[in-house]
Amino acid sequence: MVPYKTYLSESEMPTQWYNMRADMKNKPAPLLNPGTLQPMTAQELSGVFCEELVKQELDNDTPYIDIPKEICDFYRMYRPSPLVRAYCLEKALGTPARIYYKFEGNNTSGSHKLNSAIAQAYYAKKQGLKGVTTETGAGQWGTALSMACAYLGLDCKVYMVKVSYEQKPFRREVMRTYGASVTPSPSETTNVGRKILAEHPGTTGSLGCAISEAVEAATSTEGYRYVLGSVLNQVVLHQSIIGLESKLAFDKIGEKPDIIIGCAGGGSNLGGLIAPFMGQKLRGEADYKIIAVEPASCPSFTRGKFAYDFCDTGMVCPLAKMYTLGSGFIPSANHAGGLRYHGMSSILSQLYHDGLMEATSVEQTSVFEAATQFARVEGILPAPESSHAIKVAIDEALKCKETGEEKTIFFGLTGTGYFDMVAYQKFNDGEMSDYIPTDDDLAVGLSKLPKVE
Amino acid sequence: MVPYKTYLSESEMPTQWYNMRADMKNKPAPLLNPGTLQPMTAQELSGVFCEELVKQELDNDTPYIDIPKEICDFYRMYRPSPLVRAYCLEKALGTPARIYYKFEGNNTSGSHKLNSAIAQAYYAKKQGLKGVTTETGAGQWGTALSMACAYLGLDCKVYMVKVSYEQKPFRREVMRTYGASVTPSPSETTNVGRKILAEHPGTTGSLGCAISEAVEAATSTEGYRYVLGSVLNQVVLHQSIIGLESKLAFDKIGEKPDIIIGCAGGGSNLGGLIAPFMGQKLRGEADYKIIAVEPASCPSFTRGKFAYDFCDTGMVCPLAKMYTLGSGFIPSANHAGGLRYHGMSSILSQLYHDGLMEATSVEQTSVFEAATQFARVEGILPAPESSHAIKVAIDEALKCKETGEEKTIFFGLTGTGYFDMVAYQKFNDGEMSDYIPTDDDLAVGLSKLPKVE
Repeated sequence: MVPYKTYLSESEMPTQWYNMRADMKNKPAPLLNPGTLQPMTAQELSGVFCEELVKQELDNDTPYIDIPKEICDFYRMYRPSPLVRAYCLEKALGTPARIYYKFEGNNTSGSHKLNSAIAQAYYAKKQGLKGVTTETGAGQWGTALSMACAYLGLDCKVYMVKVSYEQKPFRREVMRTYGASVTPSPSETTNVGRKILAEHPGTTGSLGCAISEAVEAATSTEGYRYVLGSVLNQVVLHQSIIGLESKLAFDKIGEKPDIIIGCAGGGSNLGGLIAPFMGQKLRGEADYKIIAVEPASCPSFTRGKFAYDFCDTGMVCPLAKMYTLGSGFIPSANHAGGLRYHGMSSILSQLYHDGLMEATSVEQTSVFEAATQFARVEGILPAPESSHAIKVAIDEALKCKETGEEKTIFFGLTGTGYFDMVAYQKFNDGEMSDYIPTDDDLAVGLSKLPKVE
Repeated sequence: MVPYKTYLSESEMPTQWYNMRADMKNKPAPLLNPGTLQPMTAQELSGVFCEELVKQELDNDTPYIDIPKEICDFYRMYRPSPLVRAYCLEKALGTPARIYYKFEGNNTSGSHKLNSAIAQAYYAKKQGLKGVTTETGAGQWGTALSMACAYLGLDCKVYMVKVSYEQKPFRREVMRTYGASVTPSPSETTNVGRKILAEHPGTTGSLGCAISEAVEAATSTEGYRYVLGSVLNQVVLHQSIIGLESKLAFDKIGEKPDIIIGCAGGGSNLGGLIAPFMGQKLRGEADYKIIAVEPASCPSFTRGKFAYDFCDTGMVCPLAKMYTLGSGFIPSANHAGGLRYHGMSSILSQLYHDGLMEATSVEQTSVFEAATQFARVEGILPAPESSHAIKVAIDEALKCKETGEEKTIFFGLTGTGYFDMVAYQKFNDGEMSDYIPTDDDLAVGLSKLPKVE
């Protein structure tokens, strides 16, 4: 019998990240300089990012990149994460499907975000920097970065999307406990923040706004660089640890997933989760049905355009070619803060464009129904973001129940919902509603995409 | 090199609990009927507790008791818990000591409480009951019981100490998400609650009050029984899984602790953590220095009396012989809700009385200093309760630094502090103070101990 939880031993843990780009026929399009609309050079990027991270950002060729020993040591504090067989969920659903999930929530950041936070903080420290700035949505990335910086002795300034700052005061305290400073965004502390506040008074903010502020804070302060928890190629690279561990664990128990499901905001979890499986698919060694799940309120893949766009609302960052709703799109205040981003990783966007994966969107009340059902039988109270994947995993398992197919369904349980109890309370009280933008709502953002050949 | 985390495989997990009482020369004194002051019979106890649990409560002879398969299955959802080598803390302290901790926080209840919750809920279900009632302090026990009841389909009514109910609204929502009803205690819903409110208007409650209310609610409702998360012999029995796993893991890595440290409120964690080690000590097979750590604001071991006392404030429950501050003692509103109990497990009280373990008390500001230091280097944000053990583990490690001794220090990290951010915020803002009762404060409770020969 397959155990409930499969752990690798520490000696079995991967010591290299896997870079999907090396196996992609159609490489992701390069970042463009917002002024010249020419591909960003390493030199231009190094004003914003650490040098080693710039190398990783631009490297479309090296398939495996060594994980520095110091990062491996940090990983050992909270990794490997378990590959869990969801026996109780299977039983509750009465499905012949076998359901597995990779649980990334067993660390204080509450999510997979720590995997890239420690890497980015490590390279900043190695370069002799004083500190880093960043944005955070649900607070998971900010917490993760605070933890990594506390461990390494780096200063950490976090711009937190205002709606999350208000919904999650305790996240702020976790970050403060780890020594970070936390500012609600948009704020009066940056030029771009003041501009956004003037144009959208009363806005609850977005990841796009917070990114603009954090970039400005980094580039205007000596000894600081900006770090980002999603979207970038380097982040997808670091997060490949999720998929690599999963693949090794599946091999260990002699199992192979048929369907792989991940929630998608900027793409950090999904990109990491699918990495080695997509690698096999790209090399023609195996096939998997891969499904990205996004919130109906912020549907970049399913209703956005594949085009060059600004990564941030303030239009100070480079442009990326991606599925986007427009950098001016500010999603409604739904409860999956980590998925409220207008765009999507360029790598994932290219893969989706090339038909190598599917995408679907789900509404938040159905997501919380799935989350509650999951919590009651599997024990773990999931993050709203992760619950998007749970919802679709349950749907797929119920399809198997109808057809009698014994598929192996694998999803990423990116984190826990312990700091999302305002959202759960709304759901428990029957006060949660769904927000689906109309075509007209979306047209506003999409009509303002920059003109790039 | 010893790994950062040692996990048993699921097949190596213990399938029996260990009952320390079987090896104790001086058995813990029996519970007394509050009316007759005679030892409680099985029949009397079965009005309050399930039958199987009554058997376990009274069994002073059987050393090993089988864990039912259904409970083993549930344990596999979140156990084994890791035995962690605190390499980073050792390095930060510059100590030659080797520090280990057993981390029980990797489940949604956030603590070790789930180990007994599932056992008690299972036996209630097996007996065909409709539901159970209980009290909760910090909220960890209530959450654990809610999870166990949701899994088994039992109704769950929780009386939550008012100070925690107010400090931890999100705990309440977690319990509601798992389908439990939650009432702040003291409340107007019971006779005893109304009486306590009349005598102490404005009280922030205590575990003792909440127990009285939960017992009244259980005994006055058909098909319900009361369950308790600490103090009782049966709870210490179930929690022995912590120590048993730890012992197996130590054996696996060829290590043996010199000092074992656990926080002590009612004794559930400490009793479970030390069980097999104390067993060796009782049988003369090995020796360990064992330290109970309690809050200076609620010092049952270090400043209480070893005497028969009521287990609850309302004086409706049986009397237990234990170290107690008097059932009328209502501790000040410190931030380790789980340790705010006037008494202590009869088993642990007897062991302490017999000189088989030591006890010390620590002040909460020093506890939060230790918690923050630990969080920053070891990653995990600890519960205030657990941090009492961290504080003393650090002190012991620093003693080793002075003497150069390479001792092996082992402590119980009972849980996470994710729902304790109000307390961390107070500490971060420099607004936390210490509450140490004067001898006169303590005399009030101690002078009212019942007269028992």
